[in-house]
Amino acid sequence: MTHHDPIKYCQACGTPVVYRVPDDGDTRERAICPSCGKIHYVNPLMVVGTVPYLDDRVLLCKRAIEPRLGKWTLPAGFMEMGETMAEGAARETVEEAGADFEMGPFFSAISIPRVGQVHFFYLARLRSARFDPGSETLEARLFSEAEIPWDEIAFLTVRDTLKAYLADRALGRFGVHESAIAWSPKQ
Amino acid sequence: MTHHDPIKYCQACGTPVVYRVPDDGDTRERAICPSCGKIHYVNPLMVVGTVPYLDDRVLLCKRAIEPRLGKWTLPAGFMEMGETMAEGAARETVEEAGADFEMGPFFSAISIPRVGQVHFFYLARLRSARFDPGSETLEARLFSEAEIPWDEIAFLTVRDTLKAYLADRALGRFGVHESAIAWSPKQ
Repeated sequence: MTHHDPIKYCQACGTPVVYRVPDDGDTRERAICPSCGKIHYVNPLMVVGTVPYLDDRVLLCKRAIEPRLGKWTLPAGFMEMGETMAEGAARETVEEAGADFEMGPFFSAISIPRVGQVHFFYLARLRSARFDPGSETLEARLFSEAEIPWDEIAFLTVRDTLKAYLADRALGRFGVHESAIAWSPKQ
Repeated sequence: MTHHDPIKYCQACGTPVVYRVPDDGDTRERAICPSCGKIHYVNPLMVVGTVPYLDDRVLLCKRAIEPRLGKWTLPAGFMEMGETMAEGAARETVEEAGADFEMGPFFSAISIPRVGQVHFFYLARLRSARFDPGSETLEARLFSEAEIPWDEIAFLTVRDTLKAYLADRALGRFGVHESAIAWSPKQ
């Protein structure tokens, strides 16, 4: 789920790059082209998704792809160029679950510095319990709080977002939750 | 302020790329290497910064670099690998303003689909009115609400974040503000 492979050749002219700190006041090593001077930056990626709910149940998708094939996740994926965070989250919910829903408010933002990603979730009110999952999803189904398979959740950011959703729902008031997954040997 | 130049050569093996939709269920054209098969993704970039305040004044930095050289901005810059959003926002506040501050809560998230960026701001309580701006800043100074140079603000996301901050301050309660800058001929 990461796009962060090492850069070996200049994407502008095809020359092998060298790694050094640019002379422009930067403090980090970058892949720099010794021929055309192009500096290649590598930056964190944004994953956008939703917490789709219908009455007291939430929608989870069983992953048909690696990583975490067979585990359950909220619909989410890499944000694309030309879309807003909310548009990306809605697109992923259509692609992965084929759900009929109305987008709700921004809900969570969780940094994962170990893998260079930040995951963002919006609430989404489902209009129907019928789903039409895409090729990345084996099964899409609704879970009550008691049914959520906590040991089979694909990502820590999904677990934390689900826990925050259930806690806020119990309080009767939804906030915005910003946090980070601490660096550790396994995500 | 964008890193989104076109990809012409494979970053893994240096072969000229072709643009097509991958065969893996993707729906977008990507730069694909006809030799090694590497798919190059281009994704939105995250800019992270703060709204540094001291009593009833906010800190703005006069830009020493393009774009918007000479215009005023909140301290902010591209998020780097290996850091959380909050760590990146704090780093930029040190680099651009040399400020002494305590990080506060997450405050705003503004998508700019036209340029493939999302800008994020945290509140930051200044401990001192002394600043030591870095090379990207001509001048760092505090502004009362009446003094803010609205016609000289560098970016729409900075303007919208400042307006939200002042509105929340007047209400005596700070929320989280998520929005987007609508696509238009000028940002």
